[in-house]
Amino acid sequence: MQHNHISTQFDAQLEQVRNAVLHMGGAVEDQLSLAVQALESGDMLLIDQVLQVEHQVNSMEIEIDELCTNVIARRTPTAIDLRVLTMVVKTSTDLERVGDEAKKIALMAREFYKSGNRDMPRYAEIRRISAIVIDMLRQSLDGFARLDAEVAPVIARRDLEVDDAFQAILRDLLTRMMEDPRAISATLDIIFIAKALERAGDHAKNISEYVVYMIKGKDVRHLNADEIEQAVNS
Amino acid sequence: MQHNHISTQFDAQLEQVRNAVLHMGGAVEDQLSLAVQALESGDMLLIDQVLQVEHQVNSMEIEIDELCTNVIARRTPTAIDLRVLTMVVKTSTDLERVGDEAKKIALMAREFYKSGNRDMPRYAEIRRISAIVIDMLRQSLDGFARLDAEVAPVIARRDLEVDDAFQAILRDLLTRMMEDPRAISATLDIIFIAKALERAGDHAKNISEYVVYMIKGKDVRHLNADEIEQAVNS
Repeated sequence: MQHNHISTQFDAQLEQVRNAVLHMGGAVEDQLSLAVQALESGDMLLIDQVLQVEHQVNSMEIEIDELCTNVIARRTPTAIDLRVLTMVVKTSTDLERVGDEAKKIALMAREFYKSGNRDMPRYAEIRRISAIVIDMLRQSLDGFARLDAEVAPVIARRDLEVDDAFQAILRDLLTRMMEDPRAISATLDIIFIAKALERAGDHAKNISEYVVYMIKGKDVRHLNADEIEQAVNS
Repeated sequence: MQHNHISTQFDAQLEQVRNAVLHMGGAVEDQLSLAVQALESGDMLLIDQVLQVEHQVNSMEIEIDELCTNVIARRTPTAIDLRVLTMVVKTSTDLERVGDEAKKIALMAREFYKSGNRDMPRYAEIRRISAIVIDMLRQSLDGFARLDAEVAPVIARRDLEVDDAFQAILRDLLTRMMEDPRAISATLDIIFIAKALERAGDHAKNISEYVVYMIKGKDVRHLNADEIEQAVNS
């Protein structure tokens, strides 16, 4: 019932806001994907592209927040409208932070190759983590678009996958550092890159949790995947 | 004029929201300060305390968002009301993330001492960074409380100080890792702790920038300190 109520309102008047969020989400996905591609090659054109998109993404956050307040200012907002506004504002912030992480990755790629390094160690694992994270982002935005709270436990489980992959890469890189102290600095860069991806995954998780809050009015942010599943289905 | 307009509204009806944000800010400051104390000693009681406060902080975020929407739902909200709501929601998110960083620091302190380490290297520098960050947090909340946009350039400059201190500690710890490969794992923990503090500083900076947006309607998030100063004074 409540779901339909939000859904109808969304369909009628907040459609524009929804589209803007999805558009921003798409831009951020691209940015992250380009940044990770740049890691493989150090391609300066790709890096510049990530930085350009970052400017657009920053403006999109403000635009979404303003669009959202304008849409709501024109109606007699209900408590649910305001809850939707609240969650859209949080979503735009998380998307902008994903853009920040993509920017950091692009800048680290630049540094890495500028310092004369050639091949990025563990690139295959980095790429694997980034594929999961981009997928999480896509799923969370899909959940947002379809007002589907059920993606939240799915994403929470994938987030654990990312955390495990991060821990595995960390252990591996620690060993590498111990074996070859000259590689410490470059290896630390890769740790920071993996960490940036892990944080991007956290943002995707946050977005899926806002969807739950929007639809169910329940705060599931500090629950584990099983508990989230229970909350979503009850 | 606009400043007074917001101010009057705040004084009258959003006072409760303001107090809740300041209360949450105080809790987060305490949490960060306790977490850094725990780094020195590995005191499990302190660590537990940080984790307990974290639960409270998490609930405070939801409470603030709901309080804010309830206050606004009871009025005929103006565009400015909604802008205030938007910025309060962003502020509560950033405060909650500071709490997350404090929690991570506390958990890392626990790991560090549980792994049999005794003294934390570079604790003095970590403490120095944390003192600046806690101060930035206090200043940004003070700016929020007094609706004073002028703290933003001050905080942006202090954020550069934190970034420099982080880079210095990073260089120093890199050397340490190279000299003593057995210390790599413990040293990496300290790098992550310094990084967590740096991120807490970023959140304080974000908050001061929301205040500028609230009062001036200008997005200064991606400007440098001088540009922020100019934007605030024009």
